[in-house]
Amino acid sequence: MNAQSEQDLVARWRKRIPGGAGVVLGPGDDAALIEVPPGELLVVTTDMLVEGVHFRRDWGEADDLGWKSAAVNLSDLAAMGARPGYMVAAVALPDGFASAFADGLVQGLVECARAFDSPLVGGDTVRSSGPYVISVTAVGFVARAVALRRDAARVGDVVAVTGHLGGAAAALRIMNGGEIPDPRLGARLLRPVPRVREARELAAAGLRCAIDCSDGLSRSALLIAHESGCALELDAERIPVQEGATIADALDGGEDYELVVAGPAAAIERAGPLLTAVGRVRAGSGAELLTTDGKRTRLLGGYDAFEATTPPRA
Amino acid sequence: MNAQSEQDLVARWRKRIPGGAGVVLGPGDDAALIEVPPGELLVVTTDMLVEGVHFRRDWGEADDLGWKSAAVNLSDLAAMGARPGYMVAAVALPDGFASAFADGLVQGLVECARAFDSPLVGGDTVRSSGPYVISVTAVGFVARAVALRRDAARVGDVVAVTGHLGGAAAALRIMNGGEIPDPRLGARLLRPVPRVREARELAAAGLRCAIDCSDGLSRSALLIAHESGCALELDAERIPVQEGATIADALDGGEDYELVVAGPAAAIERAGPLLTAVGRVRAGSGAELLTTDGKRTRLLGGYDAFEATTPPRA
Repeated sequence: MNAQSEQDLVARWRKRIPGGAGVVLGPGDDAALIEVPPGELLVVTTDMLVEGVHFRRDWGEADDLGWKSAAVNLSDLAAMGARPGYMVAAVALPDGFASAFADGLVQGLVECARAFDSPLVGGDTVRSSGPYVISVTAVGFVARAVALRRDAARVGDVVAVTGHLGGAAAALRIMNGGEIPDPRLGARLLRPVPRVREARELAAAGLRCAIDCSDGLSRSALLIAHESGCALELDAERIPVQEGATIADALDGGEDYELVVAGPAAAIERAGPLLTAVGRVRAGSGAELLTTDGKRTRLLGGYDAFEATTPPRA
Repeated sequence: MNAQSEQDLVARWRKRIPGGAGVVLGPGDDAALIEVPPGELLVVTTDMLVEGVHFRRDWGEADDLGWKSAAVNLSDLAAMGARPGYMVAAVALPDGFASAFADGLVQGLVECARAFDSPLVGGDTVRSSGPYVISVTAVGFVARAVALRRDAARVGDVVAVTGHLGGAAAALRIMNGGEIPDPRLGARLLRPVPRVREARELAAAGLRCAIDCSDGLSRSALLIAHESGCALELDAERIPVQEGATIADALDGGEDYELVVAGPAAAIERAGPLLTAVGRVRAGSGAELLTTDGKRTRLLGGYDAFEATTPPRA
């Protein structure tokens, strides 16, 4: 039992939640009412973060966690080439929750919503019988012809990635060892930046196949291969590994929220410095890693929520 | 750790999830792609159910729980007068979860999605460090002119409700006492039917103000009064109390997922047998209950997630 009621909490939070263009009715009714741009597809995604599985409260500030719970959803919109539109958030708070923590959570959600022009239009605040749980759903919009899909890789395409990989996994390993990572490395885990703008530039450059790297490069490569009905080949020495991380972090770590794309060499070229080419698409199935000594290694799954032998990730 | 991987689970569930008109890309990519009917507003709502707060596994079958987690969201769409469109579901499963329970949950979600023509287009399956958690987001569509809002009650309006109230609270009380309620009463708690079709008929009859009764009639009346800037007066003897329930269950119980509306007498008349008139809108604020002996009782809040002295509800 808490000193504050759900009504009080929600009333306080509503004041902090800015409206946005297209919001006809924001938080406070049974549902939100929003305008839809004509001629575009609606893009919908949802991701849930659970305390003790995806985060620990002693890892950082509540606003980082709020930011991340929004950012991981916006990363999924980015991976479709979509423009973010709106978000709703459901939050479960344990008995005796700290009011400052809950406020910080909402603050972080709102910061991320503002940074990517994707206002919070509603939510649900409930009691938890156990951990904190935050579940966000993001909706966005994309023209059908330029949506980025996992099944759009073709034999002969170049495989490329945005940014650097492995940073989040390296930060997690350092923190699990009781040390504090370099702030830049720590931010990769605690406050990831979804590649929303980059994704739209990639679509404009003519790319049509993308996935986000939330479960590691291996898993991303395998999913593109599976959904597109082809094989991916990655060159180990070309993978842009984040300073402080290892190539294993990049391949199997996950939570980097970079984009993995496949497309014609000309489109990759047009995207310019946004991308690092790391491999190619061949006929066949599955994904392989090539090292300079000529060795080929079959890539396996990366992170799986129920097979986690490595520490938990979102 | 479980014998099955997230990939296996999701692959099995994907086979059971039917597509639907307008679904360009369903589960299996970073996000779903769906078509939007031109000229309508998008309606978005989210509700989370937590084991030990909103449900107990020994209360009923997993498919009832899956159904309910969808139904409570569709009830919010109904309360806006919206046509359901699509749903996404995030599910947290504790270590060692029973596969049959998780499958039943998805089965119930799919049954409700089918019954109300609102296909599941995506989701997230994660590990829980504690209870089962199910978070559903529903999106629907409504023409701006016929949306049902909480703030649309006017002085002189009649207040009315669909169906009968108090059944869910009565069933919960009986089950908390270790008894099994009559199946019809039990279904009110375990497998509520959202008033999706009724809501659209109410909008067609000219009504513009509605809220669902998820937190009890008292709370619904107070929220309409607050949002519309007026006072609601309810006649105790006219409230349609479900057989086996009390008027206190109807007022303060909640979880009935009926609709509370306010509108001109002529519109209420046109809606015919869908509605029972229970009161009127007056100038002022708050809500009062009138009994036949002439007594007036100021209505208080009903259920609040963090002030719960009565058993938990969705």
